[in-house]
Amino acid sequence: MSTTYNNPQTLQWQAMSRDHHLAPFSDYQQLSDSGPRIIVKGDGVYLWDSEGHKILDGMAGLWCAAIGYGRDELADAASRQMKELPFYNTFFMTAHPPVLELAKVIAEIAPPSMNHVFFTGSGSEGNDTMLRMVRHYWALKGQPSKKVIIGRHNGYHGSTVAGASLGGMQGMHEQGGMIPDIVHIPQPYWFGEGGDMPADEFGIWAAEQLEKKILEVGVDKVAAFIAEPIQGAGGVIVPPDSYWPKIREILAKYDILFVADEVICGFGRTGEWFGSDYYGNTPDLMTIAKGLTSGYIPMGGLIVGDKVAEVLKQGGDFNHGFTYSGHPVAAAVALENIRILREEKILERVRAETAPYLQQRLRELLDHPLVGEVRGLGMLGAIELVKDKTTRERYAGKGVGMLCRGHCFNNGLIMRAVGDTMIIAPPLVISKAEIDELVSKARRCLDLTLQDLQG
Amino acid sequence: MSTTYNNPQTLQWQAMSRDHHLAPFSDYQQLSDSGPRIIVKGDGVYLWDSEGHKILDGMAGLWCAAIGYGRDELADAASRQMKELPFYNTFFMTAHPPVLELAKVIAEIAPPSMNHVFFTGSGSEGNDTMLRMVRHYWALKGQPSKKVIIGRHNGYHGSTVAGASLGGMQGMHEQGGMIPDIVHIPQPYWFGEGGDMPADEFGIWAAEQLEKKILEVGVDKVAAFIAEPIQGAGGVIVPPDSYWPKIREILAKYDILFVADEVICGFGRTGEWFGSDYYGNTPDLMTIAKGLTSGYIPMGGLIVGDKVAEVLKQGGDFNHGFTYSGHPVAAAVALENIRILREEKILERVRAETAPYLQQRLRELLDHPLVGEVRGLGMLGAIELVKDKTTRERYAGKGVGMLCRGHCFNNGLIMRAVGDTMIIAPPLVISKAEIDELVSKARRCLDLTLQDLQG
Repeated sequence: MSTTYNNPQTLQWQAMSRDHHLAPFSDYQQLSDSGPRIIVKGDGVYLWDSEGHKILDGMAGLWCAAIGYGRDELADAASRQMKELPFYNTFFMTAHPPVLELAKVIAEIAPPSMNHVFFTGSGSEGNDTMLRMVRHYWALKGQPSKKVIIGRHNGYHGSTVAGASLGGMQGMHEQGGMIPDIVHIPQPYWFGEGGDMPADEFGIWAAEQLEKKILEVGVDKVAAFIAEPIQGAGGVIVPPDSYWPKIREILAKYDILFVADEVICGFGRTGEWFGSDYYGNTPDLMTIAKGLTSGYIPMGGLIVGDKVAEVLKQGGDFNHGFTYSGHPVAAAVALENIRILREEKILERVRAETAPYLQQRLRELLDHPLVGEVRGLGMLGAIELVKDKTTRERYAGKGVGMLCRGHCFNNGLIMRAVGDTMIIAPPLVISKAEIDELVSKARRCLDLTLQDLQG
Repeated sequence: MSTTYNNPQTLQWQAMSRDHHLAPFSDYQQLSDSGPRIIVKGDGVYLWDSEGHKILDGMAGLWCAAIGYGRDELADAASRQMKELPFYNTFFMTAHPPVLELAKVIAEIAPPSMNHVFFTGSGSEGNDTMLRMVRHYWALKGQPSKKVIIGRHNGYHGSTVAGASLGGMQGMHEQGGMIPDIVHIPQPYWFGEGGDMPADEFGIWAAEQLEKKILEVGVDKVAAFIAEPIQGAGGVIVPPDSYWPKIREILAKYDILFVADEVICGFGRTGEWFGSDYYGNTPDLMTIAKGLTSGYIPMGGLIVGDKVAEVLKQGGDFNHGFTYSGHPVAAAVALENIRILREEKILERVRAETAPYLQQRLRELLDHPLVGEVRGLGMLGAIELVKDKTTRERYAGKGVGMLCRGHCFNNGLIMRAVGDTMIIAPPLVISKAEIDELVSKARRCLDLTLQDLQG
């Protein structure tokens, strides 16, 4: 699927890319050869590229733009704060109003027992903070041997060395990304790995792997379990209904901390403030980013439950933090973003109206010959592309997902491919008419993909 | 040194801090008890707190505000970009104009053999990127056993798990921050650790520790050496003149990569674009942040030399990156910041006029009974507080640095204390009159500190 670029400015930007830019998660030779598509403008759920194409962004940037593009209120909040106080650190017994007001507002929307925030610049840094904080916590509790963190295969927790290790992406582990005292259990991916088991039975089995791992490592060595309520980058993996209740039961039995990575699920993606709220989970720590600012400015953090915060308060200095922790401009933008989410009742609308509509319309694609499963909840969706709907056999080695993704981009829709799973996470403000457009474009691109495979 | 807060709003913000904020590098009990000072406004080299005090910021926020506070051009650049395209990712064969234009501009100011940039959200993430990239590089070169990174005691490379491990801060290593395959050599801190050796002899000795460590670990296992041109957070440690030439000689002898952490020294702090330029060093990789945006918005990165970039280009996918890598708003602000640094010839003025003046005026403090050494270059300075000027004996256990820092804050000056070393790194735009004010306030605070010690 090659794209033709005609605008001379596009070619100039592509030359800059080739000569000077090392993009994230890229093959640099391929990027040099094809040149990147240049995104120049956004408004609502739409993007425009430098060739003048209008594209419905079914991924909200990268799970980010909750309130959509083009909300000038956030630009104005950034500008106001930048003119007043563009930066000051929050180390050494100083602070500034935006970071404190944001900490208070986050405590208001977080679960009742979670009242403190440690700010970072990203979700990755949030998970690094988690790892250092959790080990510090257990050391303060007199159990320094509790160091091991249990993650999940195909989980995603960022790209720092620790984040890549906490996550379960093999390709990342292989490139300098694995450190000791982190172990992984299977994911609750029923469609891909459930075999002949009914979904709920598989959910119990997958949850029981946590208990098995805790006992294998030793309760006295396990510090925490980290998981996304719904795995995002792994392919929008919605666990069977039986999964989280069983996990909660196991966590209640053993003395380990529960960390929810809410970088994707947080700030309304499920229709609740946090994915943990949706499932009735009560984590000790929650990592946040993305939806916190709708991606308009980099910011992340770790929401800390009272149980952990109380211990930290008695522990002297916590020797950890980032220059940009609680950056005043980022905090001002986050405050404005949360104000809009609240005052415009965006979560309420997602819950009552647009999410049910999106989920219903998406499931209509199940009649397509390429589609083996459609799943999702809230503003999250996944479409599994298969060769055989009953046996779930894949088109091995055909790169069907990337093929479909190319058709989407060339037909005005962004869906992301994770292997042969197409995933979406549109801005929370998407309307019913825009959902119709998304689903109808998706169907057309599935058709084009199927034609390629049959051609 | 207690501070009295009278403004009722201050007390409200302090309550928010106590109830909801976990600040970086803090003792939470102490922070709750005393309450943070609330910084509300910045302009030029000055800050104002919520009690109406005007404070000369001798630390540029935290080595950040190169062009000073209150430059509306940066707010306008942020606002313009946020209204046009507030976010799009640079993964998956897409990009946007600001990130590409910034990559090109950074290549223009970087050393001639360094033409590529991998963007991150912070210096910490830059160093994590370095670690993963360096190991990937050696694996691609067929030498996967080259994994070990050599850092330095008291070096600072961020606060992620990997960053804290690369750095040489023991307090950070002890709180969940040490991973394998990272080793450290002594720092070139002549005043503190040089003993009876003349400075140049000590510089050679300190450099030779690198060769010793390379041979101890094994050349086939060493991937890279990482160092700040001048250690910043460690206490503005300017190495003896003999140090860097000897390090270069050793690096030329062995097949390992040279990483300069330019987070503090970069973007003009030494009067050159990079500290490596100042010393005539030619690193393979340079970590950047802080001065890149003058701290107005979070952004970091890794400048990658041609030698490394060429290998990466032949290596297929590099499975690494951050959502906010090359964030369009951050890139737009960085472009405007660099434009101002260039067009207003700020580095030229630092080099020719204000840095020599600052260094001369600072050295006048050497006659003070508390001052054992004054050192610095460019817009970096350190004042060593001692009990005995000739023996370099310290006031053990008195917390003299923190005492002096408290007097500074209460008398309208920010200096940072690193143990009993007072350090400064003012905005690069500081004028001669403001330098006079800084030095005269510093002297007064040294007097007050001495009075406390004698009281």
